[in-house]
Amino acid sequence: MTLHHKQSYWKMDQALYLAEKAFENGEVPVGALLLSPDHKVFARAFNQVETLQNPFAHAEMLVLDEACRKIKSKRLLEYSLVVTLEPCLMCAAAAMNARVKRIIFGAYDPKGGGIEHGARIFSRQQTLYYPEIIGGIQEQYCQKLLRKFFIQLR
Amino acid sequence: MTLHHKQSYWKMDQALYLAEKAFENGEVPVGALLLSPDHKVFARAFNQVETLQNPFAHAEMLVLDEACRKIKSKRLLEYSLVVTLEPCLMCAAAAMNARVKRIIFGAYDPKGGGIEHGARIFSRQQTLYYPEIIGGIQEQYCQKLLRKFFIQLR
Repeated sequence: MTLHHKQSYWKMDQALYLAEKAFENGEVPVGALLLSPDHKVFARAFNQVETLQNPFAHAEMLVLDEACRKIKSKRLLEYSLVVTLEPCLMCAAAAMNARVKRIIFGAYDPKGGGIEHGARIFSRQQTLYYPEIIGGIQEQYCQKLLRKFFIQLR
Repeated sequence: MTLHHKQSYWKMDQALYLAEKAFENGEVPVGALLLSPDHKVFARAFNQVETLQNPFAHAEMLVLDEACRKIKSKRLLEYSLVVTLEPCLMCAAAAMNARVKRIIFGAYDPKGGGIEHGARIFSRQQTLYYPEIIGGIQEQYCQKLLRKFFIQLR
């Protein structure tokens, strides 16, 4: 678990870098990676909801969709999703539908999160598939960037 | 409400026609429409998960995404989603994120549905937005087509 956590820390740096790119573009600063079965970065994206005026252009959706297209498969069984913010219900359900192995996220999101908050998608019996969940990785850095963004908005 | 229901019945016929197209393509038979503010059919799609090998190619996601691209807006505030099957959690959350006015569906889905079953996305306090929900429109026809498909699979 320790080694695994260290790996995650390292990858979260890259997701944070992408989140900063989102910030520079006036987007809610969220970045995501999809890691291949051998833990390499297979897809990367940042939130583009405002730029594309598309409510589905969350960083997570973008990397999941890109990966499915790349490998021409509806299943991402051995892939891991890394994202700076707890996924919303749509993205968590999308990751479930794609059968990702693992979801690693940074900041918790009491308002919009769907894993540890709200519908708690993976904490219910009806759920079809349960990925491994690791939350709070580099939490403070991820949160700090989000706070900075929302303070700027006011 | 009566007039409204009659209208929905009529539109569900078109969604059912799309579901049959999905069936012919070996896809779980689900069809969807997006109705514009003046109740015209603005986008239509059927499930293409197998064809595209993309777990996000649910009929609902396809019409929502198409509509956002068409009007270049992340909000579909006065639009209605019509679909032959109760949306899964991903699609229900996507419709919520896009702020559709209304979700009209045919068959209930106790196993995979996310509105009247499972996470019951719109029955919780944390939910950010509550569209109008009308379920069970032409339920028997929608269900019959799905049953026929799953019997064939066995």
